[in-house]
Amino acid sequence: MAKLFFKYGAMNSGKSTALMQAAHNYEERGMRVLVAKPMLDTKGSDRVVSRLGVSRPVDLLVGPQDDLLGALREDIAKNGPLACLLVDEAQFLPEAQVDMLLQIAVELDVPVLAYGLRCDFAAQGFPGSRRLLELAHNIEEMKTICRCGRKAIFNARRVEGQFVFEGDQIVIDGSQKTEYVPLCANCYFAERKAASRR
Amino acid sequence: MAKLFFKYGAMNSGKSTALMQAAHNYEERGMRVLVAKPMLDTKGSDRVVSRLGVSRPVDLLVGPQDDLLGALREDIAKNGPLACLLVDEAQFLPEAQVDMLLQIAVELDVPVLAYGLRCDFAAQGFPGSRRLLELAHNIEEMKTICRCGRKAIFNARRVEGQFVFEGDQIVIDGSQKTEYVPLCANCYFAERKAASRR
Amino acid sequence: MAKLFFKYGAMNSGKSTALMQAAHNYEERGMRVLVAKPMLDTKGSDRVVSRLGVSRPVDLLVGPQDDLLGALREDIAKNGPLACLLVDEAQFLPEAQVDMLLQIAVELDVPVLAYGLRCDFAAQGFPGSRRLLELAHNIEEMKTICRCGRKAIFNARRVEGQFVFEGDQIVIDGSQKTEYVPLCANCYFAERKAASRR
Amino acid sequence: MAKLFFKYGAMNSGKSTALMQAAHNYEERGMRVLVAKPMLDTKGSDRVVSRLGVSRPVDLLVGPQDDLLGALREDIAKNGPLACLLVDEAQFLPEAQVDMLLQIAVELDVPVLAYGLRCDFAAQGFPGSRRLLELAHNIEEMKTICRCGRKAIFNARRVEGQFVFEGDQIVIDGSQKTEYVPLCANCYFAERKAASRR
Repeated sequence: MAKLFFKYGAMNSGKSTALMQAAHNYEERGMRVLVAKPMLDTKGSDRVVSRLGVSRPVDLLVGPQDDLLGALREDIAKNGPLACLLVDEAQFLPEAQVDMLLQIAVELDVPVLAYGLRCDFAAQGFPGSRRLLELAHNIEEMKTICRCGRKAIFNARRVEGQFVFEGDQIVIDGSQKTEYVPLCANCYFAERKAASRR
Repeated sequence: MAKLFFKYGAMNSGKSTALMQAAHNYEERGMRVLVAKPMLDTKGSDRVVSRLGVSRPVDLLVGPQDDLLGALREDIAKNGPLACLLVDEAQFLPEAQVDMLLQIAVELDVPVLAYGLRCDFAAQGFPGSRRLLELAHNIEEMKTICRCGRKAIFNARRVEGQFVFEGDQIVIDGSQKTEYVPLCANCYFAERKAASRR
Repeated sequence: MAKLFFKYGAMNSGKSTALMQAAHNYEERGMRVLVAKPMLDTKGSDRVVSRLGVSRPVDLLVGPQDDLLGALREDIAKNGPLACLLVDEAQFLPEAQVDMLLQIAVELDVPVLAYGLRCDFAAQGFPGSRRLLELAHNIEEMKTICRCGRKAIFNARRVEGQFVFEGDQIVIDGSQKTEYVPLCANCYFAERKAASRR
Repeated sequence: MAKLFFKYGAMNSGKSTALMQAAHNYEERGMRVLVAKPMLDTKGSDRVVSRLGVSRPVDLLVGPQDDLLGALREDIAKNGPLACLLVDEAQFLPEAQVDMLLQIAVELDVPVLAYGLRCDFAAQGFPGSRRLLELAHNIEEMKTICRCGRKAIFNARRVEGQFVFEGDQIVIDGSQKTEYVPLCANCYFAERKAASRR
């Protein structure tokens, strides 16, 4: 039986690199994979891009209302057996589509590897990752480090050089320079306290 | 730095046994631990009880409005260093108390081991486990098996011998005989389909 | 396909408790399991005993020359389907029997859960655990703590109250009072340095 | 306290890619890392090369007699704080150098990430990986798939198109075309049986 895997990690933990490595592992054995990505995310548009300098096209851009299960069924009918579905930026999927990911694994017997962030800049879950954490057969952490050397578990938002803890959940390309910084809980709490005093 | 651990597992995966083993490991080295439990749960009242036949008293029954962080601070001031806080049935904690568990680990430097279910009988997260999955430094699965031999990831509800998929999230002691059965995704989907046809 | 699992941990990490919990999980669903143990180990003789106060009889005491694979084949022919083979103190198995554990999983399709120590008091592997680490489908750590609060990874030997780092690999019941103490690498190195100065 | 990590996986599981991603994660935060590799391995000579098309130079080629601990001490004295030591093809290290890796983590407080194979083509451990499995603070599997879709745990050797199960442990560039193929236990056993009949 195929399984739904959720590989979560903070910003810059190498999620896209790992996705492309997994896709490559299948393909060099002659197996077909499909790389999907929610439309919401516009970084690298219709490509998966890693900071290590590797990239590949996305096969399936997923709109928020799309019937993922139906799309996979059609794809398999048309193109033959599918060895794996890989989902980049899976935190942006709506809940209902995560439920479909589980159905794809269980009913279509296609393994699903979903990669994504766990929490937003305010330490609140994204809809997609919240549901993936509830449903995935396997949850696996991808690690990266905080500026202090500890494991980062949060993604802080820095606007024009200053950490902010209020605002919209998704601000990928605002008019102001917005960055995301992986921080451990200690550093995140410290910056939040500092911001509350400003 | 201390960490917040979430050990989740389906019904009957041995969570309470593991909690008592961890407590024992600390205590036989002469370290003090505290066992906490949300008040909501009335199974075994103020004791942690495992199906293996082991039990121990709960040190701290937590009401939904309780200031857990304050309570821990007071406890340490009064009783000295605390080696570990262990939380049974952590899925029943409100979100705000899970945020306090993270503070207890990070600010008081006390490791927190929280044990709980991931999803309810309708495959929806509990408030406490949803938040623990978002915040914990480490997420670890405790495994148990489905009737078919696969790993169970869901907890189905059986009322008077029949699987039901609608109702209140928490029905611990109803007037009808209510049981919970750990199932894999395949068996859970099959039973849900069968129930929808009844 | 069934798998071979190796669950390793230092002394007092709760391995026997976990084994009995896993056996219980199968049995309460009406599935048959077999608990095996190498003959070498005489602690609790022919029972699995946990420090938490739980115990159960061993079904199969394994001599170092025994044909484990043949014994399992016979058992299944005689007693019907086997849901799981559980092995206590698996570090004491000879290499060849660990190879048979893998065959039992792969060829007989019976899941095998082997529990054992990783290293002896001198930080050298046991034959059984060395081979299990090489062959197991899944390796999982069972954690316990050092006296300093860190995770213990070594088992130091204390004879008449003093740490010793030379001697036979197995001294379960010597004429002198011999204990094993789980230590982290830092504390283990410190005690070894102190002993070398004596 | 820093830790020694062993990340093992079959051929083509993406170990080198993961190593370079980890190095990149440190470096983009302005932290210094060192990439080491045993001299024995001549693939890609003095570079780490991944099948994904990424590569980087090795900082430290390690001869079998080298004092790794001393070399690290000197490096830190000369070049300042070191955030991480990364070791490629760690299975080729002699036992004594793996013991030094643990000392580097514990005594120099430098995290060590060692990547390597677990077993050779005959399902026997390499000296370096055998010792890493015994000593590492954390053991983590990097997964890849067998031709049949299952998880691969063995590395079979194919010489001139035919699987062979006897020969020297290390044949990187022989006169005959030698390949390594990741296989699950089932496929590995099947090929070994077929070879024994030839």
